[in-house]
Amino acid sequence: MNNNDTPHDEVIAETPYLRLVMRRGWSFVERTTASGVVSIAARTRDDRIVLVEQYRAPVDGNVIELPAGLSGDLADDPDESLETAAKRELLEETGYEAASWRRVIDLVTSSGLTNEVATIFVADDLEKTGTGGGDASEDITVHEVPLDEVDQWLYRAQEAGKLIDSRIYAGLYLLKGTS
Amino acid sequence: MNNNDTPHDEVIAETPYLRLVMRRGWSFVERTTASGVVSIAARTRDDRIVLVEQYRAPVDGNVIELPAGLSGDLADDPDESLETAAKRELLEETGYEAASWRRVIDLVTSSGLTNEVATIFVADDLEKTGTGGGDASEDITVHEVPLDEVDQWLYRAQEAGKLIDSRIYAGLYLLKGTS
Repeated sequence: MNNNDTPHDEVIAETPYLRLVMRRGWSFVERTTASGVVSIAARTRDDRIVLVEQYRAPVDGNVIELPAGLSGDLADDPDESLETAAKRELLEETGYEAASWRRVIDLVTSSGLTNEVATIFVADDLEKTGTGGGDASEDITVHEVPLDEVDQWLYRAQEAGKLIDSRIYAGLYLLKGTS
Repeated sequence: MNNNDTPHDEVIAETPYLRLVMRRGWSFVERTTASGVVSIAARTRDDRIVLVEQYRAPVDGNVIELPAGLSGDLADDPDESLETAAKRELLEETGYEAASWRRVIDLVTSSGLTNEVATIFVADDLEKTGTGGGDASEDITVHEVPLDEVDQWLYRAQEAGKLIDSRIYAGLYLLKGTS
């Protein structure tokens, strides 16, 4: 996601995963290890959306999100496509494979402070073929929430102290518009 | 948004607006000048959603977003509430005041790389009382898009090279669910 055509970027600091950059007086972070971000709005055959929950250190709390992950961050497949990454992440995190995949839209997540762009996929016709839960570094809880109860479910999750990721609403909007 | 209860945070670098922090091996950025972020899903009386477009240096392009802004970043009002900030930002950016305000949900924008939380408001019963366009440092174009044409409008905007912010879909989901 680093735009090499943009001149005068100054690197302020770098950690193993993030780079703090100054561009024309504006500072932001970019990922150093990923070429893209994918988020998947996945719907089961009985009309449930598949959500994941995991602890996120930056907010020091548990976050409810669409299944998501990075492309290009694997040493053995640095050129992994977004589509391949989406299929891999859905299976790793939730145990599901989907017969139907649709790439829908690219969304910036917080363009005042990062150049991150997430590509949203809709996955339908799910079949459980794995256990989910994430890779060795992750501890992920899977929630399958009926689409007609999800508003109240998210409200109760927030009341219980959980945090809700913005992209969930992109997923809900897209799924409910194509049911 | 800095959680002072969390021990062992190490500040890696700081710019005028962002701080790069390491927490238990995980790095992220936090804003240094704001206590909160507000985003407003505003609907005109003839069922248009009010969107804003502005250049964002981190993505080096124009982004379509909900009207949004920071609370607590004004020297003359460091304790500004989220509600007051939402009303101020809607008026500054779009020229609209709303008779009906509803605070709906807090959303994390990208909790893998920032602790940012955006509070989403729904604003109804709009009346134009200003010119919009942002404050002295901003150059904002206002778009009023009929809700029943917004999907195609966003698709065409993306095709034209504009970037779409994720929170727009939270706004659309909330507005279409309460029309």
